[in-house]
Amino acid sequence: MEGNIGLTPVSSLGEFGLIDRITEGFSARNPGIIKGPGDDCAVLDKDESFYTLLSTDIMAEGVHFDLSYAPLKHIGYKAVSSNVSDISAMNGRSTGILVSIGFSNRFSLEAIDELFSGIRAACDFYNITLLGGDTSSSRQGLFISVTVVGEVEKDKVVYRSGAQEHDLICVSGNLGGALAGLKVLQREKDLFLNNPGIQPDLTGFEFVVERQLKPEARTDIIASLSEVAVLPTAMIDISDGLSSDILHICKQSKRGAVLYQNKLPVDYETDKVAESFQSTGSTYALNGGEDYELLFTVSIHDFEKLKGLKDISVIGHMTGTNSPVYIEASDGTQMEVIAQGWSHF
Amino acid sequence: MEGNIGLTPVSSLGEFGLIDRITEGFSARNPGIIKGPGDDCAVLDKDESFYTLLSTDIMAEGVHFDLSYAPLKHIGYKAVSSNVSDISAMNGRSTGILVSIGFSNRFSLEAIDELFSGIRAACDFYNITLLGGDTSSSRQGLFISVTVVGEVEKDKVVYRSGAQEHDLICVSGNLGGALAGLKVLQREKDLFLNNPGIQPDLTGFEFVVERQLKPEARTDIIASLSEVAVLPTAMIDISDGLSSDILHICKQSKRGAVLYQNKLPVDYETDKVAESFQSTGSTYALNGGEDYELLFTVSIHDFEKLKGLKDISVIGHMTGTNSPVYIEASDGTQMEVIAQGWSHF
Repeated sequence: MEGNIGLTPVSSLGEFGLIDRITEGFSARNPGIIKGPGDDCAVLDKDESFYTLLSTDIMAEGVHFDLSYAPLKHIGYKAVSSNVSDISAMNGRSTGILVSIGFSNRFSLEAIDELFSGIRAACDFYNITLLGGDTSSSRQGLFISVTVVGEVEKDKVVYRSGAQEHDLICVSGNLGGALAGLKVLQREKDLFLNNPGIQPDLTGFEFVVERQLKPEARTDIIASLSEVAVLPTAMIDISDGLSSDILHICKQSKRGAVLYQNKLPVDYETDKVAESFQSTGSTYALNGGEDYELLFTVSIHDFEKLKGLKDISVIGHMTGTNSPVYIEASDGTQMEVIAQGWSHF
Repeated sequence: MEGNIGLTPVSSLGEFGLIDRITEGFSARNPGIIKGPGDDCAVLDKDESFYTLLSTDIMAEGVHFDLSYAPLKHIGYKAVSSNVSDISAMNGRSTGILVSIGFSNRFSLEAIDELFSGIRAACDFYNITLLGGDTSSSRQGLFISVTVVGEVEKDKVVYRSGAQEHDLICVSGNLGGALAGLKVLQREKDLFLNNPGIQPDLTGFEFVVERQLKPEARTDIIASLSEVAVLPTAMIDISDGLSSDILHICKQSKRGAVLYQNKLPVDYETDKVAESFQSTGSTYALNGGEDYELLFTVSIHDFEKLKGLKDISVIGHMTGTNSPVYIEASDGTQMEVIAQGWSHF
């Protein structure tokens, strides 16, 4: 139907617009469905004390990964990490995954084994069980669809919608590294394509390359917060980029936010890569996706409890009802953060 | 890696072999996992009275459907039906689905709307909720991954593994229709490709075409069995074909079976199509996939209770421990049914 008169390209809506359109008009008609689309996971009633959490993510060759530099083992690992990260973002624990793959006849049995060795490694690392799945051939390329199931105590579930005015905005780890890693890998690939005699040299970029190829869900942060008895008021995982993801929290919490540019945690390597591409580390932090860090808000009364925790940065605070979202530079100038998202259409 | 020395084509294993290989060595390490891979659904502990059921299926363009004759609305509907059918096969009720789609820029917004209108129609029909999902672009074609969640009373769950010697083998509806529909659609497509002036004529084949394009999960059979208080000893849905699926039951129940060729329920249209392709209705019934009927075994003591139920045929009986599976013709000759499966690699 390419080029037919009167038809609308999906790109005119973007991914978030498309999801809104798809889910519009669907209602939770079954008892026991606490939360449908619109958060990191669907939430279902389990028993007296627990909710069941469900989430699903797909990765497609040529869109989410490039086999010329991403080993299949890492792709399998990453597919699991990105799903486990969604369970973490609800403050839950993952228990199992369903894995479906489609692949063309270009893939040998050894290649599929390699992919599943990464899935297996991730199951070991996160202590989760492979529950089932499906396999199919495809006309071109590889795609992987993972569904994760987990659980959370009913009084511990955290949605995107609970942030209040004056809450502190926190983020785990550092940001922009996955994008920096992607840039380095693409640069080396281009060099290689132009001159196949060249060996890729990733020396000095090991950290950002690992951030891109083998991200880890921050199950450790969920454990740390629980240990110091801090329950975030809102939470999301950073898969699309900080600017998109803070907007999700603000939209669903009906609040604004101010982020401080000089508080954004950015690794030295990320800075270095960003500068070599005529950008800045904080731009990468704001717009780079796939970091799989946790972005969350806490009451200011919890500030003292957070202080002793490693690897958590306070980067801003929530503002009043339906206020804008600003990023403030060190000189005090503010720029409004607007929906950018991560559009692969 | 095409053609590299020492690499093994996946087709050498087949789909079932591949699944065995993938799931080998994975163990259920989390408490509350009752059943992992190897049945129609994974089974998880829910509460005192219920289990949670999970299953996932993928459909890829050019493998599971052909957009030249399958309307997108029907593809959406079928993707849901095939998943709900897996919940039925555990004697459960579906409550919700997660839907992930990947599609190339050939697909307009109107096309995606059409796909979801079918998904919506199926959600209405089966009374289930869209819980979430994911969207991605793809380099080529459309793929759809659906995960279904459901539940079943703990004392009502039915596995593939419970069939006993002398149990009756039953099937719902009639078989081979989906394959017959596919053959008719492919024939009309070929005629059209050879002579674009020709209008496809499906008159007289409406039933089998609908079986292929818009199958329905037999949630009604689950309700009927419950009404007459018959609990199957083993059950599976017929997605790969009767011969494959009876072998799954026999393998997991460690029993043999005899099926009677003249008892196989075959519709008049299926017979007619099969004959026009120099085959027979019972061959289609044995080897055609995608009928989404239920194949189940019941104790002979339940025979009287079944008699009043519509749309259920007794087609054979289970035999002793690790016996072969035979299909018996009307003249008494027996042929062994061997693993054939539905291989799309």
